[in-house]
Amino acid sequence: MLNINEDEIKKIVNEDESIDDLQLGGIHLIQKKDGFRFGVDAVLLANFANVKNNSRVIDMCTGTGIVPFVLAGKTKALSITGLEVQEEMVEMANRSIKINRLGDRMDFICGDLTDLQLLKSIKKADVVTVNPPYKLASSGIINPSDKTAIARHEILCTLEDVIIAARVLLKDNGRFYMVHRPERLADIFGLMRKHRIEPKRVRMVHPNTTREPNIVLVEGQRDGGKFMRWEAPLYVYNDNGQYSDEIEKIYGRR
Amino acid sequence: MLNINEDEIKKIVNEDESIDDLQLGGIHLIQKKDGFRFGVDAVLLANFANVKNNSRVIDMCTGTGIVPFVLAGKTKALSITGLEVQEEMVEMANRSIKINRLGDRMDFICGDLTDLQLLKSIKKADVVTVNPPYKLASSGIINPSDKTAIARHEILCTLEDVIIAARVLLKDNGRFYMVHRPERLADIFGLMRKHRIEPKRVRMVHPNTTREPNIVLVEGQRDGGKFMRWEAPLYVYNDNGQYSDEIEKIYGRR
Repeated sequence: MLNINEDEIKKIVNEDESIDDLQLGGIHLIQKKDGFRFGVDAVLLANFANVKNNSRVIDMCTGTGIVPFVLAGKTKALSITGLEVQEEMVEMANRSIKINRLGDRMDFICGDLTDLQLLKSIKKADVVTVNPPYKLASSGIINPSDKTAIARHEILCTLEDVIIAARVLLKDNGRFYMVHRPERLADIFGLMRKHRIEPKRVRMVHPNTTREPNIVLVEGQRDGGKFMRWEAPLYVYNDNGQYSDEIEKIYGRR
Repeated sequence: MLNINEDEIKKIVNEDESIDDLQLGGIHLIQKKDGFRFGVDAVLLANFANVKNNSRVIDMCTGTGIVPFVLAGKTKALSITGLEVQEEMVEMANRSIKINRLGDRMDFICGDLTDLQLLKSIKKADVVTVNPPYKLASSGIINPSDKTAIARHEILCTLEDVIIAARVLLKDNGRFYMVHRPERLADIFGLMRKHRIEPKRVRMVHPNTTREPNIVLVEGQRDGGKFMRWEAPLYVYNDNGQYSDEIEKIYGRR
């Protein structure tokens, strides 16, 4: 249930937008009905991140803010900032702050994560999360100005840009959480070590117990010591083809 | 069934040794009853390696030769060479060649894989396999001259030594197969790329579907292009606590 009335909603939400209930104590997210909509990856990332009470979180490549809003619902973070380069998405995220009345804990910054001057002007974070574009810029892009292409391909930022930005935004020993594709894991580990964010914890996500992993969750620590822990896999579906218990729990249905 | 008679066996096999049937068309391996005996890792490695007909294989850190003997039974490799630094193990492996009458396809070299002059004198291979020591030299060694400690800890060779040796021993575009521990995977990928053996295929081995992986199998290609494929996991036990069908098949029981 939203804390605002129908008239207010009509003023805040446009005709081509939906308001989606995140099943987290009433938090809702404004999204385009037909545009880039959040996926399971962002929700898994927000659940993988270990956010302590009163900590400061920055989510890069935040889009319309799915990771910050899930974290606002699930954690006692002191502040959660989303960084996004596409102005239209930041404007939608700011309206989502309004309908959820979360302006005291959340804000969104419109900016480019390759702009190191901008990053240095932001207060350092205990936790940085990111669900970056997965695909190389070259792989099958039709229109590089397309908003969905920007969210999916390394057009405006590369994996290395993302990791450099995380290093700048994190406090000493701060934690970095990223969701990505398993086939990029050698790149991910290599670039994290190059920029001294040590990979500490990895979890693979598989469609089910018989399939190869298609999502990887990685935790790193800025200037952390070498010790990597692999977790038990997360299976999206169980052997009966239904959502696994863990996925049901993550989506707040149990 | 061995092709030799009891009297011959008594001449070849010592009192403190066993002859173990590898369940591969009658191939047997001589091992110490109480010393370092081969484990599941070596058998999984030999099954993970893709050895084409008439190819040349070198197995480093071969011990008493488990990987070469499994490959001799499972593949049509033209030649299989084992490299091992501990003289006593090479002597045992040579006796295993005799009891199996595999002298036309197999040989063992006693030598140190950090001896690059020695490596350069060996004919280049299509495939290099290795089940190296997993543990760092510093971690809990009681007696560094102990044969089991040498097989388990990086006392006589480090992970980087192993990868440098593989690069020297491989033909252009030759394939490298290693079994190791998941917690070393950032080191493994980093050192493979440093020495231009590109990680191409990875498979995690889990005790069962609910547990974290405890063994990793990695395939690399000398000067290969960037593209990594993750395979479906291998589970050692099924949900009933029995060996999984795949493990039963690998061990030749089905």
